[in-house]
Formats: sequence, C-alpha cells, structure tokens
Amino acid sequence: MSFSIGNRLRLTVFGASHGQLVGSTIEGLPAGIRVDSARIAEWMDRRRPSLSDITTQRKEDDSFSIVSGLMGDRTDGSPLTFLIANKDPISSHYDELKERPRPGHADLTLFLKYGEYRNYSGGGFLSGRMTAPLVAAGSVCLSILTNAGVNVNGWVQSIGSIKTSQIADSPEATYSAKTRIPDPVKDHEAEELIKKLISEGDSVGGSIHVSIHGIPGGIGEPFFDSVESVLSHAIFSIPAIKAIEFGAGFDLSSMKGSEAVDTIFYDGKNFRTKTNNNGGILGGITNGMPVDFRVAVKPTSSIRKELETVNLQSREKEVIRVKGRHDPCIAIRALPVIQCMSAFSILDLMMSSGNRSVLERLFP
Amino acid sequence: MSFSIGNRLRLTVFGASHGQLVGSTIEGLPAGIRVDSARIAEWMDRRRPSLSDITTQRKEDDSFSIVSGLMGDRTDGSPLTFLIANKDPISSHYDELKERPRPGHADLTLFLKYGEYRNYSGGGFLSGRMTAPLVAAGSVCLSILTNAGVNVNGWVQSIGSIKTSQIADSPEATYSAKTRIPDPVKDHEAEELIKKLISEGDSVGGSIHVSIHGIPGGIGEPFFDSVESVLSHAIFSIPAIKAIEFGAGFDLSSMKGSEAVDTIFYDGKNFRTKTNNNGGILGGITNGMPVDFRVAVKPTSSIRKELETVNLQSREKEVIRVKGRHDPCIAIRALPVIQCMSAFSILDLMMSSGNRSVLERLFP
Amino acid sequence: MSFSIGNRLRLTVFGASHGQLVGSTIEGLPAGIRVDSARIAEWMDRRRPSLSDITTQRKEDDSFSIVSGLMGDRTDGSPLTFLIANKDPISSHYDELKERPRPGHADLTLFLKYGEYRNYSGGGFLSGRMTAPLVAAGSVCLSILTNAGVNVNGWVQSIGSIKTSQIADSPEATYSAKTRIPDPVKDHEAEELIKKLISEGDSVGGSIHVSIHGIPGGIGEPFFDSVESVLSHAIFSIPAIKAIEFGAGFDLSSMKGSEAVDTIFYDGKNFRTKTNNNGGILGGITNGMPVDFRVAVKPTSSIRKELETVNLQSREKEVIRVKGRHDPCIAIRALPVIQCMSAFSILDLMMSSGNRSVLERLFP
Amino acid sequence: MSFSIGNRLRLTVFGASHGQLVGSTIEGLPAGIRVDSARIAEWMDRRRPSLSDITTQRKEDDSFSIVSGLMGDRTDGSPLTFLIANKDPISSHYDELKERPRPGHADLTLFLKYGEYRNYSGGGFLSGRMTAPLVAAGSVCLSILTNAGVNVNGWVQSIGSIKTSQIADSPEATYSAKTRIPDPVKDHEAEELIKKLISEGDSVGGSIHVSIHGIPGGIGEPFFDSVESVLSHAIFSIPAIKAIEFGAGFDLSSMKGSEAVDTIFYDGKNFRTKTNNNGGILGGITNGMPVDFRVAVKPTSSIRKELETVNLQSREKEVIRVKGRHDPCIAIRALPVIQCMSAFSILDLMMSSGNRSVLERLFP
Repeated sequence: MSFSIGNRLRLTVFGASHGQLVGSTIEGLPAGIRVDSARIAEWMDRRRPSLSDITTQRKEDDSFSIVSGLMGDRTDGSPLTFLIANKDPISSHYDELKERPRPGHADLTLFLKYGEYRNYSGGGFLSGRMTAPLVAAGSVCLSILTNAGVNVNGWVQSIGSIKTSQIADSPEATYSAKTRIPDPVKDHEAEELIKKLISEGDSVGGSIHVSIHGIPGGIGEPFFDSVESVLSHAIFSIPAIKAIEFGAGFDLSSMKGSEAVDTIFYDGKNFRTKTNNNGGILGGITNGMPVDFRVAVKPTSSIRKELETVNLQSREKEVIRVKGRHDPCIAIRALPVIQCMSAFSILDLMMSSGNRSVLERLFP
Repeated sequence: MSFSIGNRLRLTVFGASHGQLVGSTIEGLPAGIRVDSARIAEWMDRRRPSLSDITTQRKEDDSFSIVSGLMGDRTDGSPLTFLIANKDPISSHYDELKERPRPGHADLTLFLKYGEYRNYSGGGFLSGRMTAPLVAAGSVCLSILTNAGVNVNGWVQSIGSIKTSQIADSPEATYSAKTRIPDPVKDHEAEELIKKLISEGDSVGGSIHVSIHGIPGGIGEPFFDSVESVLSHAIFSIPAIKAIEFGAGFDLSSMKGSEAVDTIFYDGKNFRTKTNNNGGILGGITNGMPVDFRVAVKPTSSIRKELETVNLQSREKEVIRVKGRHDPCIAIRALPVIQCMSAFSILDLMMSSGNRSVLERLFP
Repeated sequence: MSFSIGNRLRLTVFGASHGQLVGSTIEGLPAGIRVDSARIAEWMDRRRPSLSDITTQRKEDDSFSIVSGLMGDRTDGSPLTFLIANKDPISSHYDELKERPRPGHADLTLFLKYGEYRNYSGGGFLSGRMTAPLVAAGSVCLSILTNAGVNVNGWVQSIGSIKTSQIADSPEATYSAKTRIPDPVKDHEAEELIKKLISEGDSVGGSIHVSIHGIPGGIGEPFFDSVESVLSHAIFSIPAIKAIEFGAGFDLSSMKGSEAVDTIFYDGKNFRTKTNNNGGILGGITNGMPVDFRVAVKPTSSIRKELETVNLQSREKEVIRVKGRHDPCIAIRALPVIQCMSAFSILDLMMSSGNRSVLERLFP
Repeated sequence: MSFSIGNRLRLTVFGASHGQLVGSTIEGLPAGIRVDSARIAEWMDRRRPSLSDITTQRKEDDSFSIVSGLMGDRTDGSPLTFLIANKDPISSHYDELKERPRPGHADLTLFLKYGEYRNYSGGGFLSGRMTAPLVAAGSVCLSILTNAGVNVNGWVQSIGSIKTSQIADSPEATYSAKTRIPDPVKDHEAEELIKKLISEGDSVGGSIHVSIHGIPGGIGEPFFDSVESVLSHAIFSIPAIKAIEFGAGFDLSSMKGSEAVDTIFYDGKNFRTKTNNNGGILGGITNGMPVDFRVAVKPTSSIRKELETVNLQSREKEVIRVKGRHDPCIAIRALPVIQCMSAFSILDLMMSSGNRSVLERLFP
C-alpha cells in the first residue's frame, strides 16, 4: 500500500513495467457519463513511447480496453477498469542488473523494501510505465472538467537552461510543439539540445507549468486536504518529480508582505485578485483565480554512460552501462501524466465539496 | 473534511482561532509509550506567540492538557487528546473585517466556501493558531523517532534575501538563534531586517530546511504514498507554505542525468550515495540517506499598511488596515510545526511499512 | 485504531470510563446547520445513568459542552467536538480487579491486546460509558434526518422472554415506557422481572427493533458499503450487541423463495412492496420501504453473584463478586445509542450518495 | 463507491455479471508470499456454477488469471489482480426484464439509484457473479491463515427446516457433502428437498455456521473496528445475506447474566472460557476462543413461478416469470464466499494489530 489514491474518486493501479499488462481502476464516477474512447486515446498518444525521435524508442501502441464500468459508452456507476498490454517488454535487459542497482533509479530502494522477492525488471511497479493507466483514467476526469468549463492547461516551461515565459492555453498549443515548449524558438533550441544529449548518451531535466482555469472558488477541504496538499500528493506519486511550487512559490520566501498580498477586487461578475502570487489558493481553498503551479522533473537516470554502483550481494563496486530504450528528457512525456493526475485531484476535490451547484456543473 | 490526516496514525484537529479552545486527537499509537509532558511543552514553547520581540505579541502560554489516552504517563492504546485553551482571543478586531476580506488571507475563500455561516474571526479554523495542537501531537511522534535514532533536524535557511549555507544538527543548535538561522552573523542580520520591517508595518517571507537523519531504507509506500507525497501532503496543510523541493529540487530541472544520478557505494555497514540529489528518496522510498527538503514560507499577510480590498456585500472597493498582533516573519514560528508534522508523517510511514525490525526499533 | 468511523461523516471518540472525561468529534457536517442543544440534551437524558430505579445508580448528569464547530448555534463547517466530564468515577472499585478479569467483560481481551499498560478501570475505553459521546454526536444526525422527514424509530422489543409485537412510531411513544417496551402490559411485566433480578443480583438480555421511515430509495453504496454492511458495522461497535437481522432475518433461512420475495407495486406516488421481508434493502440499496432491523443485547456481565475467573499473574482460579453500580438490563440504555448510531450511518450513506435531491432534502 | 473494502488489506472488485469479465484487486500483501494457484482453483471450484444437479446450470469454468503482483509464484508487494472471463453470459434473458424489476432482486434499487444508465443485466455489478473474484482474492488470505494455524471452518447448518447440530472441522468434511451439511442424513434430506423445489420452480433459504479456530487473543480494533463490526461489514456485502449472530447471538437476548457470562480458566497454556456464548469476542476483541458466528441466507429470488411486479415506465402491474439458470438454494454456493471473505477480514485485522508476534506468525 498504497496503490490507491483519492477520496470521492479512488484510483488504483496494478501491473508492472515488464509483466503482462498494466492497468487501473477508477471508482466513484456517477452513472451516465459519456466516456469518449477517442479522447482517451488522444491523451494516451501524448504520453506513449516513440512519440518522436526525441523520446524512447520502446514500441508500445498503448491501446487500452475498458473491461468494467460501461453500458455502451456510458458509465454505469461501477468502477472503470482499464487494461493496457505490455507488447514490447524486454526483461532480459534487466536480468544482469538484478544485483547491480542503477543509480538514480528505485532499484536499491526496492531491494531495501522488498528484499529477495522484489520486482526488479525495469523499475517493476515503480516504473514510468505505470503512468499509462494513470493517463487512461485521468483523461476521463480531464474530459469531465473540460465539459464543465475547467481547463487544465500545462506545458513544458524549461528543459535544461532553456526556458520560456510563453504560456499555452490549450492542449493543441502545447502538443503541436515537439518538446511541449509553446514557443517555436525555444522549442527548436530544446530539440537541438536533446539531440546532442542523445548523441552523448546523456539526459536532461525540465520543468512543467500547470495552469487550471475556470475552477470555481471555494474548492479544497480544510484542514489537511488543502488544494496544495491534494495536488502535491498526486503529483509526487509520478516518477521523477522532485519539486512543486504554487503561485510565486519559492520567490515568496524573499518577498515582503506588502509585495506578496494579492489585492482583491470585483470585476462585475466575480471576486478577483490583481496579482496571483498565491496561485489561486488561500487557506488551502480556491479563490476563483487560476490554480497555478510548477514542478521540477529530474533528468532520466537511465543514461548510456558508465555509472558506478555496488553489487547488492558481494557489496563490491561495479561499473554498469544501462541498456534499454530510454527518454533523454522525461519531462516531455511526464506532462500529460501531470495534467491527467491534476484533473483527477481537482475533480475529486470538486466532488468532495458536496456543493450542489458544483455537482450540477460537473454532472448536469 | 478533512480535519484528519494519516494512515496508521490519524491526527484530527478541532477548535478555532477565536473560539474557546483548540485541540487535537491522535490515534494509532500503541499502548505503553511513555509520554513526556516536559518535552511536549518544550516544543510548544518553540511555537508559541510572544517568543521574543520579533514575533507576535498575542499572549498565549499554550499550556495544554491531555484528557484521553494515558494511564499515568503511558499511552493506553486509545487516542491521545490535547486541549489548549485560547486565553487571549480578541474577536472584536475581526468584527469590522467580517465583510472586508484581508488580502492574502483565507477570508475570501472561507466566504466562497461557507457563505454566511463562515467562521470569520482571525482565520477561524484555518488560522495559524491551529498549529498549536499539531505541535502537541506531533512532538510525541518526534520523541518516538528521536528515541529510535531518527532525528528530524530543521532550521530557517533564509529570511528575505539573507540566506545561510550552515546546517543545524540538533534542536538546540537551531533554537538558540532568535531567527532560527543557525549562523550568528546571518541570525543577527535577519533580526535587524525584521525589526526594520516591524517599524515599517511590513513582513517578510523565509525558507526552511529539514534534514531527517537516521531513517532506515525501505520506508515509503508505493505507488501513491511516496515519501514525497506523504510529506508534502502534511506540510502543505500548514498555513503559509507555498513550495517544497526534495534534494536538489528545482535545480534538477536544469541538470544533466550524468550530473544528477547519485552514485551508490557500500560504506562497510550500509549502502550510501556519494551525492544526495534525490534527497534520500528514490521511487518514493527511502534509500537510507538523509531525507532532505526545503519549503518556502510566504510573508505574513497581516501587515499594518493600508491594503485595498472589496466589500463582500456591497462589492465596493475598500481600504483596510489590519489590526491585531501579528508575526513579521512567520517562518520562525512555522519551523517547529514543520518539524512536528514531518515527524508525524515519517512515523506514520514507518509504521505503515509493517516491517518487523522497524516496528521493534520504534516500539522496543 | 480505529476510534473513528464513517465516510462522508467521520466520528471519533476519546476518553475512558474512569478518566477525566469522554468526548467525540464529528466532521463532515456542512456549515449553517442549526444545532439545538436542548434536543441533544433530551437524547443524552434517554441514555444517562440513574434514569430510574431499574437502571444503574452511577451519578452522572452527562452535561456536555461543544467546544468546536459552532458560530452561535450554527455549524461552521469544522468538526463538532463534544466533551462530557466524568463526575462520578470510582476507580477504586477496579483496582482489586486489575489482575482478575471479570467474565463477560473486555478485561481479559484488553490484557491480551495491551498487556501491562492496559486501561483496566471499568472497561477503560471499551466501556458503555463511551456511548455518551456517541449519543451527543449522533443525536445531531438524528435531528437532521428528522427535519428531512426520515424517522429513526426504535423500541425495546423483548426483555428476557417477555416480548411485544407492538411498534412505536415516535420517541415519545417509546420513552414514556420505563423499559422502552411500547406496550403497557409487557412494560409492567418486564419492570417486575428486572426488579426481581436486581434483588437476586442478576441481569437479563433484551432485543431492540429499529424501523427507519421516510428514507428515500437508492441509498447504499455498492458493493461493500451496502446499507446492511454500514449499519451493522456501526451497531456492532456498541458494547453488548451480539446479533443483527434485517427484515425477516433468520426466518428467511427456512422460507421458500415464493414466500420470501416482496411483490412490487406502485401506490400512485412511489414504488412499494406488499411485504418487507428484505427490510427495505435489496442488493444493499434502499427500495423506499422502511429499513427494519432487530438486534440482540446481551445481559449485563456485571452481576452481584460470585463468578469464577483466573488471576492473570498467578493463573490460579479465583472467585470474584463485581462491585460497582450496574444496569440489570442494558438494553434499556442501549436503545438511544442504537438509534443515534443508526442515524449517523444513514446520514453518512445519504450524503455519500452524492444525489443532489437527497442533499437538498438534507441541507435545504 | 464503495467497490473497495479493508484497511491494511484493500480489496476492490470490478466487472459485471453479463459484461466481458469480473475481477478483483487485493493490495497490502507483503512481498514473498507463495501463491498456490491450485489452492485458489480449489476454492473457485467450490463456488462455481454447475457444481452438481442441485445448483445453477450456468456454464462457467471460472478459470482465472493473475495479471499483476507476482514474480513467479511469489507476491512482489504490489496488488494481486485477478481476471475471470464471463464465458456464458446470456444477456438477452434480461432485456425483456429491463423495465420489469424482478421482486427480491436489486433491479428496482438499481433503477432508483442509477436511473436510465443502470446496469440491468442479471443484477449487473450487484450479481452473485461478483463473488467469484472475491473467492479468488479471499482464498489467498485463507491459505495464509491456514499456514499460520488459523482455520476458517464453515458449513451449511440448515436448509429450510432441515438443520444439523453436527460441525465440520475441515473443508474436506464440508465439501464432501453435496449440500455442504456435514451430516449424511440431513445432507440427503436436504438434497431431496431441493430436488422437489426444483421441480416446483421454487427455492429455499439456509443458514451457515462459521467457526474460526486458532485465532490468537487480542485481535480486533477498538472502538469501531470490533471483530463483529469488521466481519459483519464484509459478510453483508455478499448478496443474499440478511442476518448474522455471534456466539449465542439472539439467544442472549432472553438469557440471564448468570447464564451468559463465560467463566474464565487457564488450561496450562492459554486462558480459555468454559462456554463460548460470546463467540470468542469480548469488547470487540478476540479472547483466544473460536470465533463463532451464524448467518442467514435468503432463498434465491429467481424462481420459475409467476411473480407480480410493476412496469418502471408505465407503472402498471405486470406478471413475470424469470428465465435464466438459477440456484435453488444459494446457501450452498454462498458458503465458500463467506469463508473467503471471513478470511480476508480476519487477516486484515491480524495485520492491523501491528503485533510483531502476530506478524511473524503470518509472514514468517
């Protein structure tokens, strides 16, 4: 435990990177919601391997089946279960690594936690492969939010030291860029950087910006289920995420109160603030402004350079070179996962509010 | 909901800033643990108002009583309940603010969530005052960890632009400094800065570093209860926290894989890594290295400058000047809260592991 | 764990029979609900000791205070916390019993579970005394249901072999009878029986019937939170309850299908069934008929006869005679606890349904 | 919600009676447990349709696959997921019943809860078919308990008015009898009764006795997770169960205290009681005696007699005759489900105890 997350919605994942399949079950959706397989497939495509020449070349079409929870194309109130076969698992890459943990990966920690019976192939159930069923389930939440006027925009803001200040206000704006940086110049620069790193057998980190528009005020559950708490809990379960900041984030630590407070005004229709240093959240509850946050994605640990490690049995030093087909910049494929898990968490919080007008907006 | 947090341990808070009392209940501790009231009081003292001339002057001695869960000084297996009276609530400060939300506070969001029947006095149940019972309960967890050789060190790393690279390896090292910056020069500079801001009626943000030593490897629950997930969930429930990063955090987003991976070696007793860019956590599970993270604390929103806001009824613009007695730099008093809530989360995760040797170490 | 129960509502109890106080916290109630202390007090009175000459003579007025969750007489969305002082604990009665477990009580099981540090005075936190704060919190749920047209009727159906087939359709009808048997002849007979048993130093069991009218159809959460599952979970947490049956209950085990099925018809306004062998629940979900169930309450184990037991240290046989002031028929005082906990569970399930018209009916 | 149950273990079901498959996921098992498919298959066989000429003739071999959680035949610490294909779903039987709810079934309540988009085929996700994946997952718990010396014995005690006082102390003793009544004479009588009812197109109820031997004292979580609470919660989620009693159960309601208390003695090795009127549970916690309970199983509601119902659209009276292939006495096939779900609950409680010697016994 816990392979499950959520409160009014509950998402469970199962399977492993190099097993037969990966899957997920989401419970808590009411009956009668139309589930559009084409929209799920679209999001699956945004995460799948072999997207382009700058992502991993593992061959997985990530086609999914929904084996529970539907009557035709409508939810029936029971859990939606997604199954995604592993079509291209090459476990043999990992057998020789069994006793030689890859630095930066969970190999050592799986050994420390599970000992002899750990699932050691390619990260086992801690692999990035597990995010495929997260996207399947989360994209359903994303569609519900979109239909309710809540848009979970997101984009890659930086790769290495290449950073944009552009924003993307739709999935189309984001996903038309190869690196997901919504800025043609920076997108091109980042692509060149990645290609160079591929040739060097190295990888690079990145950062992702998420901006959720249209979320009503009053969402978030005090005291412990603040919007920041619930979002960060979900986001940090995604492999490779090591930092999150809301609104002005770390910059707030050097600001004065007179600079940081967000002045409130009324725009004729809603209460708003002139700045959004608090990222749309005060006291853990949304104030109607966009919920804005940034996350750091670490560079892929699987690189084709020699790495020093230790043999778990002999405890002697060893040098390994990781085989397998890996992403040079995992931020690119992490983006849709972050958007889908954000959608899951926001929908869960909106449902948890028990607010009748919010429920009506979600499930008209 | 949710005024409760935790899995094997469960912490509930109740009361409000300007009500009769604040309190907490912690369930899940086994029977027979010695509870040392003096150590709880010591931690309460580190958080209480009127610590010094650079904190709020609200008068609260924060004496607590334990009304459940003890037979003598030992836990009996039932919930520990702490009650802390509010001795100096001056609600009248807030009556005039009822319809005029203070920028940067939860006043507007409480209105949006609860409407007419909101608890509007001084932040109500979203006030920093609620952290007193968190410290009471969390300090018991801290003592259990300390006895088990797990030390939750923490200190203020920066206030405004004054920042130290010093570390503190004990509460004594931290709490002997007025600003909790474990560096006499920076401590003095920060004190001067705060005094200047007091005179200007302004406030300032800060950052806190936590470093947990002695935590065994193999702690953390996949997939969704990663150490980062569980810690961030707890930490973001503390008012004024807006960012968290583990290990190298945001810096990882501009690093190359070859720079970021933490090389593994064996020191004759334990597996260790040469660097700790991952903050002691890989795949959400501890690797035996210190668990390191940093958080951003925003500047106190209650400042004695004029602030622009809007009347919730008339929706007209208004200018307010916040009365009351407020902290110029809340990071100072947030530090023990962060340490205590970190201890709560780490103890919960250690108990959740179900690992018999871990349990024996905690509860010999 | 677990001193907490519930899903959308969460009820936590704390304290112990012979400690300073007992208390409870209920979270999940929306803001703005009027809490009527007089109605709470009325239910507390129906459970309190010294009700009459046929209940325990322990002196407790069971006055309560609400220390969290209210703004005036309205809920503010935060947890309601009830404190009830123990005014007449005579722990000395129990010191001599510490190593000599009373048969039929939890003394032995507390020893087996908690060992040396158990709370041994008068059942500790497993005492019937803990039901006082359950009634305080549950009666608030009962009032919400009553206002929404859902009536949790209940009465004592049998004491010893004295049994009525009468029903009570209001608290007044039930609580005007000394034994809570809504049948003057049987009430009198049962009173005489109890007085005889008091003189003999013995006690007697009883059964309770609950009939919940006005509950809408469609309540209950598949698969595992069936109405029967949720109600029985709550009811079996009440000390002394050892059996529960819904509708025709155990009689169904000897019936034929053609006798047992409840024929469906439409009464011009609602779907109804001609019989109610299923107790208003099919597939775990309400069908709009009254939810009917019966529970068995065992005879009080504290009797003033000599009982054989064993010394926990020496393991030698011992004979004890239980002192203290005990109920000769605990079913009488268990009734309001069962009604209040049923109300808690039903309200929780109604809120869990997420059905907007149900929510509107509950919280108009 | 909630298609999940459990605390330290968590069991989720998905699928539906007439969909593509049914399945379950169980999380919380530690790594390294040997999973014996043959033992799972044995339990699946005890529940499957077409057991004999006195059960339903629906053809399902109930072969299962485990698609997550194993490395070879050992658990890897991640969820075990079982898939069981529906090979013989004949949905057409149900299309004509869509608007004509079968009395005694969940058809009406599914309509009341889910409206237009309900899963109406053969009970949908409330069907007895869902118990197949419960047995798959629960039988793994049963094996763990058996290996730890905890035996969950069970048998059919009565069918109609035919009742035995015999007990069965092993699965073999139970399952060698066609009706699961461990008494050749009564077994034969019951078989004749069932055959007669088949010829009449009728069905009959039954009762089941469960007796759990070898469970250590001190298991059960106060206050709300008493053994009775946790077991009844699980048991009442099984379709057709309408009553449960522990120990002497309803008989306690007419007993005197002096008759009901279970005298304690020491047998040289353990504390024991001379009688077991409390069914091995006091104060919600096990005392080391067998945990004994009885449940009532209602007669199958699907009978081949004409039944009166109402059209959900026209609200006119209608007469239906249920097609499909149904069990004349569902108690026979409910027995292994009850044993498996009891095992799940008991294992969950044993793990929840956090008691190191209990954990060592379970997972040596």
